[in-house]
Amino acid sequence: MSFVAFPPGTMLSPVPIVMLSCAGESVRPNIITLAWAGTVCSQPPMLTVSIRKERYSHKLVTETGEFVVNMVSRDLIGAADRCGVKSGRDEDKFATCALTPVRADGMRYAPAIAQCPGYLACRVKSVTELGTHDMFLGEIVAVGIQDTLFDAQGKLDLGKARLAAYCHGAYRALGEAIGYFGFSVSAPDVYKRRMRELKTPAAPAKKEHGR
Amino acid sequence: MSFVAFPPGTMLSPVPIVMLSCAGESVRPNIITLAWAGTVCSQPPMLTVSIRKERYSHKLVTETGEFVVNMVSRDLIGAADRCGVKSGRDEDKFATCALTPVRADGMRYAPAIAQCPGYLACRVKSVTELGTHDMFLGEIVAVGIQDTLFDAQGKLDLGKARLAAYCHGAYRALGEAIGYFGFSVSAPDVYKRRMRELKTPAAPAKKEHGR
Repeated sequence: MSFVAFPPGTMLSPVPIVMLSCAGESVRPNIITLAWAGTVCSQPPMLTVSIRKERYSHKLVTETGEFVVNMVSRDLIGAADRCGVKSGRDEDKFATCALTPVRADGMRYAPAIAQCPGYLACRVKSVTELGTHDMFLGEIVAVGIQDTLFDAQGKLDLGKARLAAYCHGAYRALGEAIGYFGFSVSAPDVYKRRMRELKTPAAPAKKEHGR
Repeated sequence: MSFVAFPPGTMLSPVPIVMLSCAGESVRPNIITLAWAGTVCSQPPMLTVSIRKERYSHKLVTETGEFVVNMVSRDLIGAADRCGVKSGRDEDKFATCALTPVRADGMRYAPAIAQCPGYLACRVKSVTELGTHDMFLGEIVAVGIQDTLFDAQGKLDLGKARLAAYCHGAYRALGEAIGYFGFSVSAPDVYKRRMRELKTPAAPAKKEHGR
């Protein structure tokens, strides 16, 4: 096993798949799917999304200074793909993908997508021109999570969301939990308990295989 | 199903898990694991990594202006976790995790990690102070991929790398391919062929379940 040189490129994998929703003063809401997105700061909580200048959403986000990042579950992957390849100039993607815009906390224009497992409402702090893409730095001002993703004790269980990731041109389902932050230095009893808690959400995935 | 407000935070999931390797003029190489990383531009290819000021690697990356992002497969998840919680001030993480530093193309100081499926060698273009984290914008100047990840035709098959993702405190294995960029608007015969190609790498995962 040894390294082979590959043309320098955007090989980092996996990366998130997000459906970014935005709107304008008198413009219908739009969705663009992005994989060039990531968390960049814990406090204040911030993320970046990168959008090509020529995309319709670029204009909407620039004009309003806000956007909503919606997380993508595997049953939404067809809609997410369509929202990445089609333009909001040509079609109403909420309509063609049978998705519903709903109010996002803290946003004046940008809606959240009702069918997504969760959303992060962001205010644009800066825009940096990098080349093909402009990088929007957003401060996360509100978060909404589906009530169905909380357990009986009110604890969020994001494993239930059955999220998907982008990996060098392919969309992949997230599989089983294989650890948690700090597990390598955990006491054995803590490790057992935490892993048992994390493994629970694997159940819904089985249903899919039986479809 | 409806949204419940959650404290604004770094909820975006999944995000990558990367082992960042770096070194200094006369300093042993170090590794720090990060989830605050993402692709931000296709051309020139660029990514960001965010590091807390107090981390040992912050100093090394700042001083040398370079770092290597190594992708993480699920068998490396224990090492990756340790490199996220331990400090390079206290231990030689290459030694404690039984990892091997190897030359990374285009880098003067920062090595790649021989055991990782692939690496992206980056030169720092800017550093932005955001709060708890400083965001390093890196231009990807070289990429190395393990020779074992190419098929007989010389085509890269990143599904074979069995990568892992970070998801709200948990590490999760990447599972089956559920689509590819553009699949929602593909002709049926193209869809069938592409999905068949993508599903092939699922085989190695089965071996793991039989362990």
